[in-house]
Amino acid sequence: MTALLRRRDFSFLLYDVFGADALASTTTFAGQDRAMYDAVLDTAEKVAADAFAPCAAELDANEPTWDGERVTLPASLKAALRAFYDAGFGGASFAEELGGMHLPYSVTQAASSMFAIANTSASAYLMLTTATAHLLQAFANDALKQRFLPPLLDGRYFGTMCLSETQAGSSLADIKTTATPHDDGTYRLVGDKMWISGGEHELSDNIVHLVLARTPDAPAGIKGISLFLVPRFHVDDDGAIGAANDVKLVGLNHKMGYRGTVNTVLRFGDQEQCVGFLVGELHQGLRCMFHMMNEARISVGVGASMLGYAGFLTSLQYAQERQQGRPLGAKDPTSPQVPLVDHVDVRRMLLAQKAYVEGGMALSFMCARLVDDIACDVDVDDNKLLLDVLTPIAKAWPSHYALKANDLAIQVLGGYGYTREFPVERMYRDNRLNPIHEGTNGIQALDLLGRKVPSQHGRGLQLLGMRMQADINLGAKHDDTQRFAAALQDEMQRFTETTMGLLGTAQGGDIDGFLQNAHAYLHYAGHLVVAWLWLKQANALVDGEAARDDFAHGKLAACSFFFDRELPRCERWARLLREGEDSARRCAAEWL
Amino acid sequence: MTALLRRRDFSFLLYDVFGADALASTTTFAGQDRAMYDAVLDTAEKVAADAFAPCAAELDANEPTWDGERVTLPASLKAALRAFYDAGFGGASFAEELGGMHLPYSVTQAASSMFAIANTSASAYLMLTTATAHLLQAFANDALKQRFLPPLLDGRYFGTMCLSETQAGSSLADIKTTATPHDDGTYRLVGDKMWISGGEHELSDNIVHLVLARTPDAPAGIKGISLFLVPRFHVDDDGAIGAANDVKLVGLNHKMGYRGTVNTVLRFGDQEQCVGFLVGELHQGLRCMFHMMNEARISVGVGASMLGYAGFLTSLQYAQERQQGRPLGAKDPTSPQVPLVDHVDVRRMLLAQKAYVEGGMALSFMCARLVDDIACDVDVDDNKLLLDVLTPIAKAWPSHYALKANDLAIQVLGGYGYTREFPVERMYRDNRLNPIHEGTNGIQALDLLGRKVPSQHGRGLQLLGMRMQADINLGAKHDDTQRFAAALQDEMQRFTETTMGLLGTAQGGDIDGFLQNAHAYLHYAGHLVVAWLWLKQANALVDGEAARDDFAHGKLAACSFFFDRELPRCERWARLLREGEDSARRCAAEWL
Repeated sequence: MTALLRRRDFSFLLYDVFGADALASTTTFAGQDRAMYDAVLDTAEKVAADAFAPCAAELDANEPTWDGERVTLPASLKAALRAFYDAGFGGASFAEELGGMHLPYSVTQAASSMFAIANTSASAYLMLTTATAHLLQAFANDALKQRFLPPLLDGRYFGTMCLSETQAGSSLADIKTTATPHDDGTYRLVGDKMWISGGEHELSDNIVHLVLARTPDAPAGIKGISLFLVPRFHVDDDGAIGAANDVKLVGLNHKMGYRGTVNTVLRFGDQEQCVGFLVGELHQGLRCMFHMMNEARISVGVGASMLGYAGFLTSLQYAQERQQGRPLGAKDPTSPQVPLVDHVDVRRMLLAQKAYVEGGMALSFMCARLVDDIACDVDVDDNKLLLDVLTPIAKAWPSHYALKANDLAIQVLGGYGYTREFPVERMYRDNRLNPIHEGTNGIQALDLLGRKVPSQHGRGLQLLGMRMQADINLGAKHDDTQRFAAALQDEMQRFTETTMGLLGTAQGGDIDGFLQNAHAYLHYAGHLVVAWLWLKQANALVDGEAARDDFAHGKLAACSFFFDRELPRCERWARLLREGEDSARRCAAEWL
Repeated sequence: MTALLRRRDFSFLLYDVFGADALASTTTFAGQDRAMYDAVLDTAEKVAADAFAPCAAELDANEPTWDGERVTLPASLKAALRAFYDAGFGGASFAEELGGMHLPYSVTQAASSMFAIANTSASAYLMLTTATAHLLQAFANDALKQRFLPPLLDGRYFGTMCLSETQAGSSLADIKTTATPHDDGTYRLVGDKMWISGGEHELSDNIVHLVLARTPDAPAGIKGISLFLVPRFHVDDDGAIGAANDVKLVGLNHKMGYRGTVNTVLRFGDQEQCVGFLVGELHQGLRCMFHMMNEARISVGVGASMLGYAGFLTSLQYAQERQQGRPLGAKDPTSPQVPLVDHVDVRRMLLAQKAYVEGGMALSFMCARLVDDIACDVDVDDNKLLLDVLTPIAKAWPSHYALKANDLAIQVLGGYGYTREFPVERMYRDNRLNPIHEGTNGIQALDLLGRKVPSQHGRGLQLLGMRMQADINLGAKHDDTQRFAAALQDEMQRFTETTMGLLGTAQGGDIDGFLQNAHAYLHYAGHLVVAWLWLKQANALVDGEAARDDFAHGKLAACSFFFDRELPRCERWARLLREGEDSARRCAAEWL
């Protein structure tokens, strides 16, 4: 059995690269220290290994069923989720007065990562529930907070996001669910919601649905959308759970992977008795929901990287143990076979996985550090802008490249990798969801180039460039990193020029031309950012006189792989973007 | 429901590009004509649609089970396979005196393709059985042929390939199964075989296993391997099926996809009573098996392209029907939604699929035409060499890029694509096998660069270059194709130089350096060849005064896409190869 994780992969990023221990000396996180953070991660690793990992294959083999009355999931799932809450992780990021630990996001994300490695579809409930609580904390009134936050933090209630409808997936402007004001200040909701993860189950005492809907006479499109809290069961003022609210399960979606996360079609107000509570201001629903959505998008990237990481460790161990074939040119068939890892093409596939997934992890830690800096009041406006720019990348890049890593993990295992005897095929199936949900990667590309880049005259990218420049300057000082620094400098220059060209196209009014290769721009920006984060990791290792150990050599090898084999992909993307390559645009629909 | 296929996609390649109708005027295929070929394809399309397509999802949902006595598969599978043989396809490529139709391989491959589109895991039995018959026809003695060919051709017997063992997957030199001569001229086999598709079932009256094994005192390694025919049930001289041979099912492998094809672990000679018959010369087993293997490798590529094609058609229809979102920059949320295909990024994903899968199809048809030319005694030595060079490409390129097409098909369907409500997730799972079996793509890369390219002083590649040059010269004459011709000319030049450089490294004795990026070389050669085949398709369309219809525009759009977005990938591969990029080689195993 493969070890769940290599702890130094986490502590290196958390402390050596992103300096999370320094957070403990801020006013915001006063009284904390690295020993505390390590203890949290020790517990997370243990609960993940003991309660989450053992049931991952079982959840996959036994997808949720519904008999018309009840949704059934393996009992091990409920036990695993309970173990998470019993260990106090539900309140990890919340204030102490709420019973929380008030930990930095960098630390709670590292802890969440461990649950995602162990069992991604189980951990989805935790992510949704924590994000629901964060949203309520930000936007709900005190009465709703008092009633719903405590049970969401201790896992008695779970949360959901109800955005999509069958006719409105990527196009949220087209949702039809209605919310009609009632005399008592509540609302009555009517409508069907699609793709609702965790929409119905017996895992928690109650479910808190956050639902986008339109009030009567609301403006058309996204400007008329409001946000409502809809509990599965009514809750009395004293917190006692009452009768069922009018939320009906219509059916389950049957997925290729991610099967432990029940995915549902829900009907709100089948009896016109569905009670909801407005969260935030009227018609500000999408803005509120994006608070949750941005967190969810970063979490998607984290989950994708963790699936890739789990596959990497599995295939690495297999390649170290499995004896097959002989060195190239070895003529003697009676000589002993060598382990797979000795074959250079297998090592390429392992190194590529490492470069992708540890690059993706670094991206997640970068985002988490920005969240923490914002919480610590450090350059709040700038850090928010930077986080805005990085969010679509943090969602899409790992969901593409860590999936590639899972593909490579299967290939390393060969025929065995294609069977359920090993977990890599499951990881591949699970990870295929990540380029789709929480906004497809195509939507992320439009968000990045169409919205985040032009925002505030491109200041987000400028801030990114300044951060990168600082690491380039550092990297230029050391023999081992200067060629990476130089390559990144060149690519950053080309990226900036490419971006300027695109913004010129937009200013010229050619919106279709501006955005036609947004997809390539997202890959380009992602590779640039991940190259930077590999340089940042290398910088953290070469500075100093300490002897290089295997860990340091491995990091430098992966950095080298990324710069020598991956960064050169940027050239093609830059060319497509600069030349305005338009074969798709020129192709009429009926020609296909 | 999506139509199974678009017939013109086949007839264009078969007749317009590769001129299969001209085969009918050769001595070898005298008496045939295009009407006959079309009738064969009509029947194939009908049987595939009526018998194969309807049970594809059922086979996936009900993988084979084994109760210790019997392997159970859905009854619809047996009925589908029976329909294939009832329609006479079992003998399609065999001589008339064997009851066959003696059709060109180009035509039978087109027919097989249709079964693969409809139901890839069902069609695997057919491919294995036909290839078994081809091998026996080439190498078995008359007695074996008389006893086993007729029932293999009419589907009473099915065939298997038994190469791998648990300790010997890619490394066939390490097989341990033994075959001991018996007084009566037969052999007794003892050993376990792994990954045997169709190894045990009740779909046919008998199963003909082709088994690689070592005779006593045989040389070590591949030079000591011989090939044996091992029937599941003994067969009397008069063809009557007798008692069971000593072949025992040890277990089933449970796969991510391709589930209709039962995959087994077999034990030969558990009671030391397993009777086998030598096929071909002693110690020539691997050479004989490669007769079957090469056919299987080309078939893997065909199957991969067809899965990609099926996904392309499914996602195209979805994109034409599904209304979602509005044009970029459309401000009015009350305006009607547009079909997905109107979004440029969706059109990119569709066009990429078309470019990959129709490119892969062209590659298969090219190989089939070479097989036919060899059968017609046209430039036999040259065409064999060319086919040798193209075989690893024909196996690996579609299995990589048509899988990418399936990935894009899922993405076009979004959340729906991730569910079993649509077939694209199944196609993606099915296709993931293709880069693994019949020699992993890593093995194909070593075969291409390490064996096929250097063979006969590079004559195979020279022949390929001459064929390409002819189409470049043709393409250079027309306005619509000359830029493709020019781009291909340049890339061919770079490829040749890159290859010369690599061969220089090999001649210098640095075998590790020569082969370290064989993987990239395979991609490079594949993209070059497929670019050529897109030019060849374009040439077939622009020559003449006929008005361009949607089909022609679509082909030219896909050709343009391939040249403008795909061919530029070659630059990076060329650089890796020319610079001898060695990050994987430099990375010690313990650094990972």
